[in-house]
Amino acid sequence: MAEKNRLDPRLASDSLLAGQMANCDIRLMRDARFFWLLLIPHEQTDDEIHNLPSQRQAEIWQLAGALAARIKAELAADRVNLAAIGNIVRQLHLHIVARHEGDAAWPGPVWGRGQAEEPSDALLADRLAMAQRLLADCG
Amino acid sequence: MAEKNRLDPRLASDSLLAGQMANCDIRLMRDARFFWLLLIPHEQTDDEIHNLPSQRQAEIWQLAGALAARIKAELAADRVNLAAIGNIVRQLHLHIVARHEGDAAWPGPVWGRGQAEEPSDALLADRLAMAQRLLADCG
Repeated sequence: MAEKNRLDPRLASDSLLAGQMANCDIRLMRDARFFWLLLIPHEQTDDEIHNLPSQRQAEIWQLAGALAARIKAELAADRVNLAAIGNIVRQLHLHIVARHEGDAAWPGPVWGRGQAEEPSDALLADRLAMAQRLLADCG
Repeated sequence: MAEKNRLDPRLASDSLLAGQMANCDIRLMRDARFFWLLLIPHEQTDDEIHNLPSQRQAEIWQLAGALAARIKAELAADRVNLAAIGNIVRQLHLHIVARHEGDAAWPGPVWGRGQAEEPSDALLADRLAMAQRLLADCG
């Protein structure tokens, strides 16, 4: 699967490509604490989602919502947090994070809380397979 | 302006009604540190946005995006953070927060950071007027 050329170095090191859909890369964060996806539009812009054409905004939020619904069901998540922040990494990306009561940041947000924990190879493989299954379900 | 009957007590005490649009209440957070709006769909559900009908999800995100774009322009914000979290307050609500480099939580997220600072009456009045102007622009 070809990755797009331009990817912020921090996004590249913090996450792995899991798939592509609706002209977005879907990446899995390397953090054992959470099942955490990034949705990175192929526009590869530092601008914010609200400045994309309205049809494109709708497409991206629709994909985010579909993934969130699948994540909630598959992982029995108590909540799925959706966000566009980008205060540190400016390249446009959305966060989709499965949250469980009592998880490492609960009930706070995951952003800027503690340090990411490197997942084992087995956990990473499991999560990548899960992400790819969720994407296939949304296709 | 009639408020809807059911509003989570924490949302009620932390924010003020600024207006209504697209079958959502728009509320202003009582926090001097940030220009921070809540968008509360009239569905008055504890469920998450991704479980609303897809047309309704699109309508809500469209309103959020339009408000974010106006906020960015009017307040010369460096970034506008958009999020659906709801780990603590379960009633469905979206956050739209104007962020400026060097603000009280920068570059972290605003959720769960420090304590809200009660705005002066003058600041609250200014911000309510601003929120109402932004809503009118989006109408």
